[in-house]
Amino acid sequence: MRASEILSHKRDGGTLSAEQLRFLIRGYLDGSIPEYQVSAWLMAVYFQGMTDEETGELTREMIASGDSIVLDRAARPYIDKHSTGGVGDKVSLILAPLAAACGVSVPMMSGRALGHTGGTLDKLDAIPGYRSVLDPERFAAVVAEVGFAMTGQSERIVPADRKLYALRDVTATVESIPLITASILSKKFAEGADALVMDVKCGRGAFMKTPTDARALAESLVRTGASLERNVVAVLTRMDEPLGAMVGNFLEVEESCRVLAAPERPVAGFEIPALDDPRLADLIEVTLHLTAWMIVLAGKAPDHNAALSLARERLIDGSAYRAFCANVEAQGGSVGELEAGFGTRRAPLSEEINATADGVITEIDAYRMGMAGVDLGVGRNRAEDDVEPDVGIELFAKCGERVSAGTPLCRVYAVSEAALSAACERAAQAYVIEQDGGVVSLGSRIIEELHELE
Amino acid sequence: MRASEILSHKRDGGTLSAEQLRFLIRGYLDGSIPEYQVSAWLMAVYFQGMTDEETGELTREMIASGDSIVLDRAARPYIDKHSTGGVGDKVSLILAPLAAACGVSVPMMSGRALGHTGGTLDKLDAIPGYRSVLDPERFAAVVAEVGFAMTGQSERIVPADRKLYALRDVTATVESIPLITASILSKKFAEGADALVMDVKCGRGAFMKTPTDARALAESLVRTGASLERNVVAVLTRMDEPLGAMVGNFLEVEESCRVLAAPERPVAGFEIPALDDPRLADLIEVTLHLTAWMIVLAGKAPDHNAALSLARERLIDGSAYRAFCANVEAQGGSVGELEAGFGTRRAPLSEEINATADGVITEIDAYRMGMAGVDLGVGRNRAEDDVEPDVGIELFAKCGERVSAGTPLCRVYAVSEAALSAACERAAQAYVIEQDGGVVSLGSRIIEELHELE
Repeated sequence: MRASEILSHKRDGGTLSAEQLRFLIRGYLDGSIPEYQVSAWLMAVYFQGMTDEETGELTREMIASGDSIVLDRAARPYIDKHSTGGVGDKVSLILAPLAAACGVSVPMMSGRALGHTGGTLDKLDAIPGYRSVLDPERFAAVVAEVGFAMTGQSERIVPADRKLYALRDVTATVESIPLITASILSKKFAEGADALVMDVKCGRGAFMKTPTDARALAESLVRTGASLERNVVAVLTRMDEPLGAMVGNFLEVEESCRVLAAPERPVAGFEIPALDDPRLADLIEVTLHLTAWMIVLAGKAPDHNAALSLARERLIDGSAYRAFCANVEAQGGSVGELEAGFGTRRAPLSEEINATADGVITEIDAYRMGMAGVDLGVGRNRAEDDVEPDVGIELFAKCGERVSAGTPLCRVYAVSEAALSAACERAAQAYVIEQDGGVVSLGSRIIEELHELE
Repeated sequence: MRASEILSHKRDGGTLSAEQLRFLIRGYLDGSIPEYQVSAWLMAVYFQGMTDEETGELTREMIASGDSIVLDRAARPYIDKHSTGGVGDKVSLILAPLAAACGVSVPMMSGRALGHTGGTLDKLDAIPGYRSVLDPERFAAVVAEVGFAMTGQSERIVPADRKLYALRDVTATVESIPLITASILSKKFAEGADALVMDVKCGRGAFMKTPTDARALAESLVRTGASLERNVVAVLTRMDEPLGAMVGNFLEVEESCRVLAAPERPVAGFEIPALDDPRLADLIEVTLHLTAWMIVLAGKAPDHNAALSLARERLIDGSAYRAFCANVEAQGGSVGELEAGFGTRRAPLSEEINATADGVITEIDAYRMGMAGVDLGVGRNRAEDDVEPDVGIELFAKCGERVSAGTPLCRVYAVSEAALSAACERAAQAYVIEQDGGVVSLGSRIIEELHELE
């Protein structure tokens, strides 16, 4: 078998066999196939794509490149959720304890912020004492004990993905649907998930800007999952404006707790219960919808409607918040210290942005808000940069809301004047206010869902 | 400027600027841009192509990567010919002295055999004493003295091409028209050619199998030449059966001399003068046609018809052969020893292949004949292999000829029994004889010609 023949076969639109993919990936990892052949293959894949079976074989080979986490068979099936990344996307922080409270076992492996999108691990790190990176044994133990655990990707899980991703990043081959699919699925299945709910975000704050691209990724994820005999449910959700009212690290943990703790235990500083706050309607809709699919995949409810009812009930009765607190303690964090920060833990400098005209907010550009977050230190431009836990943006109004000139639109929290002014400038540009009214309700954030369940 | 941005621009179908191409090629040569980014760029070019101006800029940058040969300005313009490679293609050996005899200055830089195609340098090496690699000073001196010189590519000319070609070879990116164009033109213009005649071969023995592909390459060569303000005439010629009657190294030198020396000085062993031998009609047609374009480009005749007459005259009056002999002596060879081998210098083992049925030869597959040549040692599979000077195949009949069962079709000369039997098996498979007659004359080998001359 020769690498150059594999390349010309793919270049000409052929399908690679499991043996050819194995030869390529193993050769790349052991150094017998040079990076320049792998990058040429990546570019050929960018143009020619891969069949679902081929993507499945690549996924299998990537999983085989490292360790897989072995979880207790008794608590199967294990269900995970993954998002393609958004702004204000704290869904995992609410969904994981909520699913666990509904009887689903959730081994969740998350990433860090990069570019305009936030990262669950950076948010978790804002919880006092919380250890967001667990070794595989501790991870398995926390899943068994609490029903869910949250960790970063171990070096030992899918090393092929880290190596391939670094190469894709510098060879303009990140944006390939089968390569994205294999990257996501290999990590999720190696970490022990039996089935997966995918939140494929779509819009100006998402990786996929158009429903067509998002649908193509969703289809690839579902079908590749099927070729690996794993159920994948993909939900296309809107990511045009930030999700919920907070963009930040601690700010998003606080907002998640506010949703989880409501209405029995409202978080200090918020008068309106989360479930009645129109700014949080999109966050709660998306979270409940995705959690319900996890419940269905785990067989804990007969259908999505029944699962939605169960999830709503467990959110309202406080059991989801109890699961969250149990996880915080199990992963070394302090719930007391966490709660003490609610409503007060904010970066020292802040500034309000006010509406400059009467009208309806028709756009809050999530990409610009995300980049304002990068200015503040919510996220990072380069993987090696540090983030700030207490900075961020609180939105007072969301799209569809009618405002008057001078109405506060959002407040920006920063640790330096330079960051504050850069972020405020960007955040102000994110808003479009149309004076002649227009749409007042944007409707559901759920665009479409794809799966192969019966 | 960042390489990954250049890659994504090309990947998305953009046109690279001269600055971007310079950054890429210089960075590749000085090691600041790694091979994996260059190979990804090559694959993106394979899919997205390049504009003619872009190909021109790449050519310019490749020329700038090394030395250029400086020829005496007084003898300008210098005209060269290049072929995309064929089987039995000894056109250069006849055309260069013939053009020189017509007053054209020809600085010819040739390549070696690779795969099924032959190489002019390997043929020249079969001339006793001939030095086929000259340093630039000696090369310039021989051009000035004899009117033409023949050499291999110096290490100092277009180093970017050698490096890029090696990378293309292992990344399945050889077959890209703009990359082929830049590779050919950079070498030809760096060696001192002011204008170029391209023999773009087309058919089963050629790199380009279809007229569509051949035409695309021809157009790219002509237009890229124009963007560099150099005239390029591209002639599409058929390469379905071997050109002429000989496939070999010394055998092809001998056949070239037979054409050059006829009719005044017929080569021993051939009773029929070359110009009356139907087996050589295609070779002579293609050679005269291409030479005539060189004469036109050099301004030595007002149009192609007048140039054709001049070339025919110089061939018949023996001045082309005199130029050939002068070159042999100037490059260290011995005409006496060369001529002593005519008709007798043959590898020791030989076998005839006979027709197995009555009918008309409708096919002599040049690719199979070329590969039979590789079995014998005419050519090579790998660049580091040696070739044999005295092996090869002599065709007794060509396409369109009527034969009876038992008629000798060709004779194969080899240095080992193993090579002989392998080559005979392949050569026999090259023939298709159709019993119900069919076409008897295949007509002209010239398919089409492209140029931007007035």
